[in-house]
Amino acid sequence: MRKTEADLKVKKEFQRYRDIFEDYLEASAGLRNSGVPEKLRESMDYSLFAGGKRLRPVLCLAAAERSGCVLKDALPLALGFEMLHTATLIHDDLPCMDNDDMRRGKPSNHAVFGETLAVLAGDALLALSLEFPLCHSKNVEPHKLLRAMQIFSSAIGPAGVCGGQVLDMDTAPAANDPDYVRKIAALKTGTLIRAAVTGGAALGTDDENFLSCCYEYGTHIGSAFQIIDDILDVSSTAEELGKTPGKDAEQGKITHVSVYGMEKAAKMAEVETMLAKNSILKILPEDDFLPQFTEYLLRRTH
Amino acid sequence: MRKTEADLKVKKEFQRYRDIFEDYLEASAGLRNSGVPEKLRESMDYSLFAGGKRLRPVLCLAAAERSGCVLKDALPLALGFEMLHTATLIHDDLPCMDNDDMRRGKPSNHAVFGETLAVLAGDALLALSLEFPLCHSKNVEPHKLLRAMQIFSSAIGPAGVCGGQVLDMDTAPAANDPDYVRKIAALKTGTLIRAAVTGGAALGTDDENFLSCCYEYGTHIGSAFQIIDDILDVSSTAEELGKTPGKDAEQGKITHVSVYGMEKAAKMAEVETMLAKNSILKILPEDDFLPQFTEYLLRRTH
Repeated sequence: MRKTEADLKVKKEFQRYRDIFEDYLEASAGLRNSGVPEKLRESMDYSLFAGGKRLRPVLCLAAAERSGCVLKDALPLALGFEMLHTATLIHDDLPCMDNDDMRRGKPSNHAVFGETLAVLAGDALLALSLEFPLCHSKNVEPHKLLRAMQIFSSAIGPAGVCGGQVLDMDTAPAANDPDYVRKIAALKTGTLIRAAVTGGAALGTDDENFLSCCYEYGTHIGSAFQIIDDILDVSSTAEELGKTPGKDAEQGKITHVSVYGMEKAAKMAEVETMLAKNSILKILPEDDFLPQFTEYLLRRTH
Repeated sequence: MRKTEADLKVKKEFQRYRDIFEDYLEASAGLRNSGVPEKLRESMDYSLFAGGKRLRPVLCLAAAERSGCVLKDALPLALGFEMLHTATLIHDDLPCMDNDDMRRGKPSNHAVFGETLAVLAGDALLALSLEFPLCHSKNVEPHKLLRAMQIFSSAIGPAGVCGGQVLDMDTAPAANDPDYVRKIAALKTGTLIRAAVTGGAALGTDDENFLSCCYEYGTHIGSAFQIIDDILDVSSTAEELGKTPGKDAEQGKITHVSVYGMEKAAKMAEVETMLAKNSILKILPEDDFLPQFTEYLLRRTH
């Protein structure tokens, strides 16, 4: 199959998962919003429906389906991953963090709802990201759901996403340490992408080899994703990107591009892509969506 | 037994649970801090070790023990409740929330570590509050742990603690609505106290009657606790209270005292205390710690 054909096929499959996810996001409004104060609901929904690639839920659904889980039984967990991702974006944009007024091509949450509600919407989405799959995954076996939630929750706390954000806000002391940028990316972005794949798979199987291949795949695809993100922040336009480009350099953030330069960063993304593909080929055929997705991601422009 | 004798007995039993909890808090440092950036660990520990009554973990441990759970198997969940409570205090004190520089007799988290780290320490403790019991309750049966985590997580999200905080920050539209103050108290304080009792009990039993009595007990004791807190905010000193008294009135917050007056508020606290006691007497004897604790709480001065 030629590259363009392969890309089209991957794109179509990604879109299929994404559509299923978007439908569920709409359909779950009653479940999500029961007992929630109106203003808080508005603020949460504003950011949940602000678009975004839905990378984490798609990876979660694809991995779950390949592990033997019925697709619809993985939807609450997939939504949990998107809720958590959205929560981190809301808090990352706050004046006391990256102070960014634009996100996904729209004013960021605090620019619309104010700082107080933005902090609370982030808190509420963080809590709900775990509550929702814990409470609504009725058809998943308890010990498998528990494992998936262990994987998910471990990715977001102080040794995961939150820890990564602390390092990201405090780059000064280690600006010349090439390991530092990799550590930030691993914690801040990588852990959640890896958890989406591995957590999704854990809903359907407790086979350690399957889960371990998903873990490796998630590690490398998460790493590739962040490197490509750093490259696009330099090379892309606001329109393509849906957020302010060049922000990293402006804020003096260390990124893969600032530390390694564009050429080496691109090479690193290729290596991570290859490693991701090799990991998942141990359990899935070459023409499957998950291995094919690695190279599709490498060629993305936004 | 005379009141002073009963109080002494309750105080001693509370202190026993509290000591067990404090020892675990110290002993769990390795588990809690593995892979956590140093600055984040400092900021989290500052607030976790800032004292506090430890009401939620004590109620969780007491309910767990009475449900048939081995006491030490309930410690991770008890710690989860205290982590979550601490997370909400850190965020409540932020400049964009209550803007309080004093907490538990010490400078509040953001006053020491800055706003950025305070937001992230709150986020990290919120996430860890669920991760920690999910990952470290090895001896609890999966379906019981799952139930406890459903109870816990449902209490803290947008229809629980976070929703209550949104209402609390936005009292203007309903200042004359007497139901509003009860709703805030129920969401912001009551749900977590109720979840500590019910979640603890769910670790040891799936008997619906037992859990339902715990739920009622938790509802009423949570309500009593908040009314008494409002009364103490007016009648107590900073030294007794460990935080700035009179803050509610100063910020124009509606409280049980501002809505009902001191005398009626005190009467309401008595009624809730009686209801709490009656609920738990359906499953526990009169001289047990949990029923006795209700009246002890009513007589507290800080």
